Amino acid sequence: MIKVGIIGATGYAGAELARLLVNHPEVKLEAVSSVSYEGQRIDDIYPNLKEVLPMTLESVDAIIPRCDVVFASVPHGVSEEMALKYKDAGAVLIDLGADFRLHNEADYNKWYGKEYKHPELHEKAVYCIPELHRDEIKDAPIIGNPGCYPTSISLALMPAIKAGIIDLSHIIIDSKSGVTGAGRGLTQGTHYPDTNEAFAAYKAGAHRHTPEIEQTLSELSGEVVKVTFVPHLLPVNRGIESTIYATLNEKGKALTAEQIDAIWRDAYKDERFVRIEKAGSYANIKNVRMSNMCDISLHRDDHCDTLIISSCIDNMVKGAAGQAIQNMNIRFGLPEATGLTMVPPAF
Amino acid sequence: MIKVGIIGATGYAGAELARLLVNHPEVKLEAVSSVSYEGQRIDDIYPNLKEVLPMTLESVDAIIPRCDVVFASVPHGVSEEMALKYKDAGAVLIDLGADFRLHNEADYNKWYGKEYKHPELHEKAVYCIPELHRDEIKDAPIIGNPGCYPTSISLALMPAIKAGIIDLSHIIIDSKSGVTGAGRGLTQGTHYPDTNEAFAAYKAGAHRHTPEIEQTLSELSGEVVKVTFVPHLLPVNRGIESTIYATLNEKGKALTAEQIDAIWRDAYKDERFVRIEKAGSYANIKNVRMSNMCDISLHRDDHCDTLIISSCIDNMVKGAAGQAIQNMNIRFGLPEATGLTMVPPAF
Amino acid sequence: MIKVGIIGATGYAGAELARLLVNHPEVKLEAVSSVSYEGQRIDDIYPNLKEVLPMTLESVDAIIPRCDVVFASVPHGVSEEMALKYKDAGAVLIDLGADFRLHNEADYNKWYGKEYKHPELHEKAVYCIPELHRDEIKDAPIIGNPGCYPTSISLALMPAIKAGIIDLSHIIIDSKSGVTGAGRGLTQGTHYPDTNEAFAAYKAGAHRHTPEIEQTLSELSGEVVKVTFVPHLLPVNRGIESTIYATLNEKGKALTAEQIDAIWRDAYKDERFVRIEKAGSYANIKNVRMSNMCDISLHRDDHCDTLIISSCIDNMVKGAAGQAIQNMNIRFGLPEATGLTMVPPAF
Amino acid sequence: MIKVGIIGATGYAGAELARLLVNHPEVKLEAVSSVSYEGQRIDDIYPNLKEVLPMTLESVDAIIPRCDVVFASVPHGVSEEMALKYKDAGAVLIDLGADFRLHNEADYNKWYGKEYKHPELHEKAVYCIPELHRDEIKDAPIIGNPGCYPTSISLALMPAIKAGIIDLSHIIIDSKSGVTGAGRGLTQGTHYPDTNEAFAAYKAGAHRHTPEIEQTLSELSGEVVKVTFVPHLLPVNRGIESTIYATLNEKGKALTAEQIDAIWRDAYKDERFVRIEKAGSYANIKNVRMSNMCDISLHRDDHCDTLIISSCIDNMVKGAAGQAIQNMNIRFGLPEATGLTMVPPAF
Repeated sequence: MIKVGIIGATGYAGAELARLLVNHPEVKLEAVSSVSYEGQRIDDIYPNLKEVLPMTLESVDAIIPRCDVVFASVPHGVSEEMALKYKDAGAVLIDLGADFRLHNEADYNKWYGKEYKHPELHEKAVYCIPELHRDEIKDAPIIGNPGCYPTSISLALMPAIKAGIIDLSHIIIDSKSGVTGAGRGLTQGTHYPDTNEAFAAYKAGAHRHTPEIEQTLSELSGEVVKVTFVPHLLPVNRGIESTIYATLNEKGKALTAEQIDAIWRDAYKDERFVRIEKAGSYANIKNVRMSNMCDISLHRDDHCDTLIISSCIDNMVKGAAGQAIQNMNIRFGLPEATGLTMVPPAF
Repeated sequence: MIKVGIIGATGYAGAELARLLVNHPEVKLEAVSSVSYEGQRIDDIYPNLKEVLPMTLESVDAIIPRCDVVFASVPHGVSEEMALKYKDAGAVLIDLGADFRLHNEADYNKWYGKEYKHPELHEKAVYCIPELHRDEIKDAPIIGNPGCYPTSISLALMPAIKAGIIDLSHIIIDSKSGVTGAGRGLTQGTHYPDTNEAFAAYKAGAHRHTPEIEQTLSELSGEVVKVTFVPHLLPVNRGIESTIYATLNEKGKALTAEQIDAIWRDAYKDERFVRIEKAGSYANIKNVRMSNMCDISLHRDDHCDTLIISSCIDNMVKGAAGQAIQNMNIRFGLPEATGLTMVPPAF
Repeated sequence: MIKVGIIGATGYAGAELARLLVNHPEVKLEAVSSVSYEGQRIDDIYPNLKEVLPMTLESVDAIIPRCDVVFASVPHGVSEEMALKYKDAGAVLIDLGADFRLHNEADYNKWYGKEYKHPELHEKAVYCIPELHRDEIKDAPIIGNPGCYPTSISLALMPAIKAGIIDLSHIIIDSKSGVTGAGRGLTQGTHYPDTNEAFAAYKAGAHRHTPEIEQTLSELSGEVVKVTFVPHLLPVNRGIESTIYATLNEKGKALTAEQIDAIWRDAYKDERFVRIEKAGSYANIKNVRMSNMCDISLHRDDHCDTLIISSCIDNMVKGAAGQAIQNMNIRFGLPEATGLTMVPPAF
Repeated sequence: MIKVGIIGATGYAGAELARLLVNHPEVKLEAVSSVSYEGQRIDDIYPNLKEVLPMTLESVDAIIPRCDVVFASVPHGVSEEMALKYKDAGAVLIDLGADFRLHNEADYNKWYGKEYKHPELHEKAVYCIPELHRDEIKDAPIIGNPGCYPTSISLALMPAIKAGIIDLSHIIIDSKSGVTGAGRGLTQGTHYPDTNEAFAAYKAGAHRHTPEIEQTLSELSGEVVKVTFVPHLLPVNRGIESTIYATLNEKGKALTAEQIDAIWRDAYKDERFVRIEKAGSYANIKNVRMSNMCDISLHRDDHCDTLIISSCIDNMVKGAAGQAIQNMNIRFGLPEATGLTMVPPAF
């Protein structure tokens, strides 16, 4: 059994990790930690866990020596400090925050307003969307778990990039996220009467996931990819839908909808967690909720030679806790779907 | 492996059964049946099941000889006919409909407007809320799976009845159910714009679950129990909350809130799926969703010597598919929680 | 034109008052006040009011001398202090808080933990649900505007009490309120992901509206009326539904459903804002939202000789701002529906 | 008083018209018609209208001679037939359907699969978004009321086109509509449990509003404008948000965000129903619901020289019934906001 700890266990990603790990057959959840609630019971904070996970929240330092792997879900800037401790203790760190996602310190400076304090850690850290980078983390001491929006977008676009069928100089991405994406912290914008029956964009062209998206797409293509990325707050608890607009290039224009469809099916034919919709069907948040699935649908706008891709994930599972577990499974040599067989509910 | 079939697999209870059984370690889902969609793929009707359950829907007759147990979720009156066939084939029938719930044919006549065509089947059928009746189904050929409302209510009231602390001549029950309780069929009342931001009672004092509730409570107490039962339609997908108002009798009035609490804790101390809230906490639909849990909270209104009980279940799991699997586990000698370890999500 | 001020204009009741008064033909909204946001624009806090109400929030003292009537929506204990100032200035105070609702200081002490500092004010203050007490406020300097739950409940029960057909020693009331009832302040319990797809009771038998309900019913009947009152938080923005269970007394048992129905129709035949449902129909929050209506439906449970009444209002309109305007109209001799002709939307 | 009739009064647009016209000070709602419910009371179908609009639904022929203006909200192909009758009777027809929106019969053929049966009617019909075309309908016998999506989009883009600052060869539009946009008819896709907590695109690049959008933009610009238009179904009752992505041309690139903002403010400085958000604020469905407002926010993505416009309306008001009344006011010489002063609720 792998001994696992969760840092930041009372945030939403941490709580979802705890919930999922309860049913992971190869894991012993050794310890949970929270700065805000140290000494309290996690099932007092999250009563869904009553009698299921009657654990007391500990300090970060108390759990360090006891774990083979630690999931950290803490504000950016904090993970880096922790990573130093875990490295000394020999544990693997899977970081759900932003500290180990960007490969270029300048990007981190620009978008997060901080500098690397321990650059050597970043050299060893590996960013990993399993379907794209799984071979790179076999020995990684630190795994940068991807952001929710970038996951939905990178999985959707990878086949287009590999096949070289779209214009990479400008891709437009219109994403919508459920409210759990904003976390557990209270804000006026997530107060129920302000959120319910409401819908709006936010941080248009200015969201911190933008450089992460461009990094992944640029690395996949070997070219500089630029995106206009606009997220929206969606009045549901869970789920992200990204509608992506890519102009077909000369090679792409020559393809029929069926040929385009075949490229995606081929790219993901061995992937358990990526499903391509049938022609005429649309990816829907409802079909991936509570699961580690990513559903993708493809639509060719012949009128404008534009490829429209809709990509859906559960932001808390494939977009956070589930993907982190998937990364752990890979890192520890387990079958990738271990503990991740949740079937999305129909309703 | 137990070979399982589902009749009525495209109704909501059937679809939830299919979803849960995919992850049941001792079950092989042998066949799914649907009158309306015979010949189609279940994952075309329920795209959440894409690549998870790529099965074709068959006729009822085609699946009869291949299953050890069949779950039937069909309109009342239909199960009885099927039961005859299954009996001949030697399979166990777990009926999620109403045909095998009432012990008294007169009640069935009155509330469902039908007569028993095969009275001998009803003699062999056993109604079973596992926490109350599990010992009675060890050899049962037909198990009447309880209604959703009666499950939430009977579990809440059993300790009061066993302890003899409430007035049984009149109990008031105010229940609220998520919209899946109304099923997959289209009605104006479940059309999204009519249901969202709406709330109302329905069938006040006239819901068909009333005789089932009274039957269970009367049998537990050995007295005639009468209830006023008013259900309401709640704008959520899943979940039932029942608020129950029972007048404390002389024995009950002598008890403190702590003593009352202890009665419930003791009654359910060995039950995995029933959780009693701490003093001052309230059962909440959100803490049981997607799970087989029943959460119960107790509140003593000293002002009127009234015991207020709030009881929450997921109507599709503990109120239907989950409880049916729990009954199957008992009937086939498996640990009761096999395949039912889902932890409710916090959000 | 009546010159009107609003104290606490950035709370939910205050903001709803501002919105409704914009379209009141006999009112000039002279000033709005907020302790938290003094000096800011109300339409910066509430962007729904952009270009509709470009007013700056002022201090309480600044608006005193300029208004004929002031609506105060502030925490209990605060209104009393303000009332003193307004009395001196000669303005009518319509208080949407709790300070002027209870007629008995002992009740106020018990439920709100405070004492009257200016008892003389309370002697002059009049509590007024217009349909029940409109004749009492013609000259009142201070009007205690009723609580939301008590409004829905008192209107539902008045005809029963006047007709003397129910047992008054114990009435059970199960109410459900939309989330605006909890106000604009941020709490974990009103954070969107905690509230959406959730449902639970709160303050069972212990809500501060209990003595107000009992006071109104007792005064109407001339007897001591006792109620068990349990509110629940409903995942909608607006609306209260109260399901009330009253045991029919000997006089009541002798009545048919039709006769009972006739009592309510007669009691409200001249009331524009109270509508009695047809037999077999149910009051529904959706049919009263955004309006000053109270819809009531009656259901006779012959089985237990119990009268079930369902009563729906919009908690922010008939339960707060709308009723306050109705009281102002009466106090200033205007037709009662002036500015309150909003028709509830069907969706 | 203008005598008004509504054809198709039990559809959602018709019901909203009825609701709004009740409070229109210059209108007498003379008659309501419904094919499906002829002879029934409209307040039996829509109980929100109980005691407010106790009218009986009549046949179309019965209401023809009695009205000065008729609003028709019927399936495409049906309006044309009606228009002929109304023309003979001398009434103005305001058509909320699609029959009189497209100026080119070939477009109508292609997107609606029908031919004009009475081409002469189309010559006299005028399509009118009031802010863009109000001068054209002063004497029009038939007014084609715009579609909901085109309204939100055309208002957002008009200033860009007039100023000549964007590339018109390809504009990308990602729209999201509340469920009332799908109408009152029952479908699996609008069944509450299928819609709630769900989100998906539909008819990507293939929605019938596409030619209407291109027509308006092309006429405004005098060039052929092409759009990729993807609508999504949003789990709220009301509201459309359109996020529009336009590439700045050379003239546009030279402008700062402030200069761009000034263009929109200037274009709409005299318009009561169009509001431009402050820099950094986002248009939100919640701020326009239940009103005739259109809120627009502007965001310059410097990174890609792309202008992002977010535009919100209530699909049932500015997108249907409200705009139709606005058109009627213009046609009959009334102040444009008569009967349309509804202030959007904050919650």
